[in-house]
Amino acid sequence: MDINSDLGESFGAWRMGDDAAMLGIVTSANVACGFHAGDPAGILETLRAAAQRGVAVGAHVAYPDLVGFGRRNMDPTSQELVADVIYQIGSLQGLAAAAGTRVRYVKPHGALYNTIAQDERQANDVITALLAVDPSVTLMALAGAPLIGWARARGLRVVAEAFADRAYNDDGSLVSRRLPGAVLHDADAIAERMLRLVQTGEVESITGRSVPVQADSICVHGDSPGAVEMARRIRARLEQAGVALRPFVD
Amino acid sequence: MDINSDLGESFGAWRMGDDAAMLGIVTSANVACGFHAGDPAGILETLRAAAQRGVAVGAHVAYPDLVGFGRRNMDPTSQELVADVIYQIGSLQGLAAAAGTRVRYVKPHGALYNTIAQDERQANDVITALLAVDPSVTLMALAGAPLIGWARARGLRVVAEAFADRAYNDDGSLVSRRLPGAVLHDADAIAERMLRLVQTGEVESITGRSVPVQADSICVHGDSPGAVEMARRIRARLEQAGVALRPFVD
Amino acid sequence: MDINSDLGESFGAWRMGDDAAMLGIVTSANVACGFHAGDPAGILETLRAAAQRGVAVGAHVAYPDLVGFGRRNMDPTSQELVADVIYQIGSLQGLAAAAGTRVRYVKPHGALYNTIAQDERQANDVITALLAVDPSVTLMALAGAPLIGWARARGLRVVAEAFADRAYNDDGSLVSRRLPGAVLHDADAIAERMLRLVQTGEVESITGRSVPVQADSICVHGDSPGAVEMARRIRARLEQAGVALRPFVD
Amino acid sequence: MDINSDLGESFGAWRMGDDAAMLGIVTSANVACGFHAGDPAGILETLRAAAQRGVAVGAHVAYPDLVGFGRRNMDPTSQELVADVIYQIGSLQGLAAAAGTRVRYVKPHGALYNTIAQDERQANDVITALLAVDPSVTLMALAGAPLIGWARARGLRVVAEAFADRAYNDDGSLVSRRLPGAVLHDADAIAERMLRLVQTGEVESITGRSVPVQADSICVHGDSPGAVEMARRIRARLEQAGVALRPFVD
Repeated sequence: MDINSDLGESFGAWRMGDDAAMLGIVTSANVACGFHAGDPAGILETLRAAAQRGVAVGAHVAYPDLVGFGRRNMDPTSQELVADVIYQIGSLQGLAAAAGTRVRYVKPHGALYNTIAQDERQANDVITALLAVDPSVTLMALAGAPLIGWARARGLRVVAEAFADRAYNDDGSLVSRRLPGAVLHDADAIAERMLRLVQTGEVESITGRSVPVQADSICVHGDSPGAVEMARRIRARLEQAGVALRPFVD
Repeated sequence: MDINSDLGESFGAWRMGDDAAMLGIVTSANVACGFHAGDPAGILETLRAAAQRGVAVGAHVAYPDLVGFGRRNMDPTSQELVADVIYQIGSLQGLAAAAGTRVRYVKPHGALYNTIAQDERQANDVITALLAVDPSVTLMALAGAPLIGWARARGLRVVAEAFADRAYNDDGSLVSRRLPGAVLHDADAIAERMLRLVQTGEVESITGRSVPVQADSICVHGDSPGAVEMARRIRARLEQAGVALRPFVD
Repeated sequence: MDINSDLGESFGAWRMGDDAAMLGIVTSANVACGFHAGDPAGILETLRAAAQRGVAVGAHVAYPDLVGFGRRNMDPTSQELVADVIYQIGSLQGLAAAAGTRVRYVKPHGALYNTIAQDERQANDVITALLAVDPSVTLMALAGAPLIGWARARGLRVVAEAFADRAYNDDGSLVSRRLPGAVLHDADAIAERMLRLVQTGEVESITGRSVPVQADSICVHGDSPGAVEMARRIRARLEQAGVALRPFVD
Repeated sequence: MDINSDLGESFGAWRMGDDAAMLGIVTSANVACGFHAGDPAGILETLRAAAQRGVAVGAHVAYPDLVGFGRRNMDPTSQELVADVIYQIGSLQGLAAAAGTRVRYVKPHGALYNTIAQDERQANDVITALLAVDPSVTLMALAGAPLIGWARARGLRVVAEAFADRAYNDDGSLVSRRLPGAVLHDADAIAERMLRLVQTGEVESITGRSVPVQADSICVHGDSPGAVEMARRIRARLEQAGVALRPFVD
């Protein structure tokens, strides 16, 4: 099993998260590419630390919206979206080469992540971008999303991820953040929940039913001291139960 | 002999230059990387046209100053400058791969170009960036600049360029744009001047003396209809005299 | 009758439109505020020219999307949109004061213009912003749009505008740009059409019917030499017919 | 005596400083205007809190360098610098009006602050901007800097400030940050030092001599919990000694 987290999200004088701590916990790092977060010098520092730790690197591509942190919907043309994604992957490939590592996968961020899970036009634009810049790169996508099928149909390798601290609906989709109970907070319960996911391929839904969630990676957060501690407990619980943690890419 | 020009400098809704016309004249294209000009979709379009024409592609890296078009001096730290240059080269490498070509050289733009010609600290930062991302890439630099020696000493391949429409001092340096006569305007005289440069390795200085200028590439502009026409005449004059025009890289 | 146009849309080294020419034609200038176009120095130059010509100044506020020229939909929160609009109006007020004029009206641009014509939540955010920064400012809106009623109900003065070169549906709405015939090109026919609008309050719809369009201002474009010439003919035709042209604000 | 601090420096998802805490300590707030920090929604929130607390508001204008936090030298033309400063003051005036307060003074930030203290050309550009947008606004400047004389000669009201946590040279200038001992860390010693400044107009220089520093405001920082606590102690020490703290503007 793989554990991934969003890193490299500082920008200039502004800090976000504790990349050094998280790189001791995760096996894959979704590294910002400058469109929603991340400046080149900060990204390079994170990539060097990831290389030293043996953590796999992914390009965390986003809409061009720094002030909105890539969380606001936009409607780029296909020409714009394809080129924006290629540009970001390329910039991270360059920095990764300088850091002695390389970009193994791509995980869209924020509003782009949510949009392409369901929107076939923008999904295909992102897929086109990946195929154009590096057909061997893996796409990381929301477990259960239509995106997964679209990407595989066009020849991309896809890895599905589950969210450690999010509640699931009975159909395996995420409970909307606008609804109560969408975000989980009990670190120990979350750790047990993820262990169960790894061992059985199921999570308990918000209504109490067992629902299958096919995931090869678990997404954890590191944007607060509490989040880092939760990530640490999830990793510890999985290791204690004998789950081998390693990047999903070799 | 090689002829180079700055391309890909449109941005969003704003046009600059006539890339299609210039790609029929030059043998090397200095393509903007988004820091002083160029948005990903526009850059990709220019790269595709360059690939079709067999024009060699260089990364036209700059300070992060869109509103100032990279023409204003800045004092980035070494950490910032190294990473900024790698980021830009990487982004262009990604887009170039998608366009079926690749980045063969790097030409700094505007204030960065002028600064590193003389400033050893910033020059070494740019050299470090090139070595880190791709040691086989060529640096394009001002003929006669100290930069050339610094870069060669660290193992980079360097190509020196002359400016078609600029006057030269007796010591082979460019006449400052702030002085009268710095910029030449007579297309036919400029074409003859460049032919002489190619054939003899000399240009007539602003005081009328013959001065040696060792250049493997001639820089022409394309940011106005008049500039495109001047570039066309320079090429025509060189070809008429039997000068073979091809990219300085194979 | 008033004639308005979008001005101040150059950005740094990039030119757009011929502001000097247009300021000899229009009576009101929608001046960019830096979010979709316009840098402070260029905006100030346009404002000074507008002040000299006695052209009324409006703030052409937009989503923060320079590379997309404010033409892409975004979904800012109300907190973001209210503050973004106030910020832009304030910046133009400051520059207008320095130019010896002042901001008399606000015209949203591009995607924001289209969205708030119909979307009550974002419309109310823009109205809130205007009321907060200057309740005496006028809102310029699409003739026939629900926005007009919402703004008047909250106490704003509103001026409705017609588009000189756009076709209208039978219900008085604009024909979508995605449909054939949406944009008109015959300058003389357009000039006659606008004269009829001024004299009768009606335009011929795309199906040939007379439809009422209540407009106090006519929007013309100036982003190409052809557009400037069209604007000039519209003004000449109206003046020839004895229509007094002056800003809708005193 | 007045105490000022830099506020409103968060940007989008990134937090900086604890504005709420600092607004309980300072009497004047230097509020970011979006060029080095601050997004409109965050700035507006800070301005509302300042208005509620009765804290005077100043425009903290900067070079356009978000990723460098306005700390890097730039060489804008006079046309650019004048307009950039007016734009920023105007944007803050607009947001301040919406928050029920107004911009009473202008304090340049970072590299611009340091440059105009000594550089007459850029200093005059900033002075020109202030006179153009609001001649009644006060300029806050480094105590002892040539800027003070230049601004007063052109009719601006100027307030000089001292830095609580910085060492001074024998000539009353600040010890460069690149030298050891430039920044002071002992909160109680700093508080005593500032009390002495208020009572005698003198500080002890880095060589141990008493040097006069004519200051009407003390600058404190709030970008870390330790900095907030230091600011609190300085205020407490001054109040304990009977110093009246209030904005330097009425």
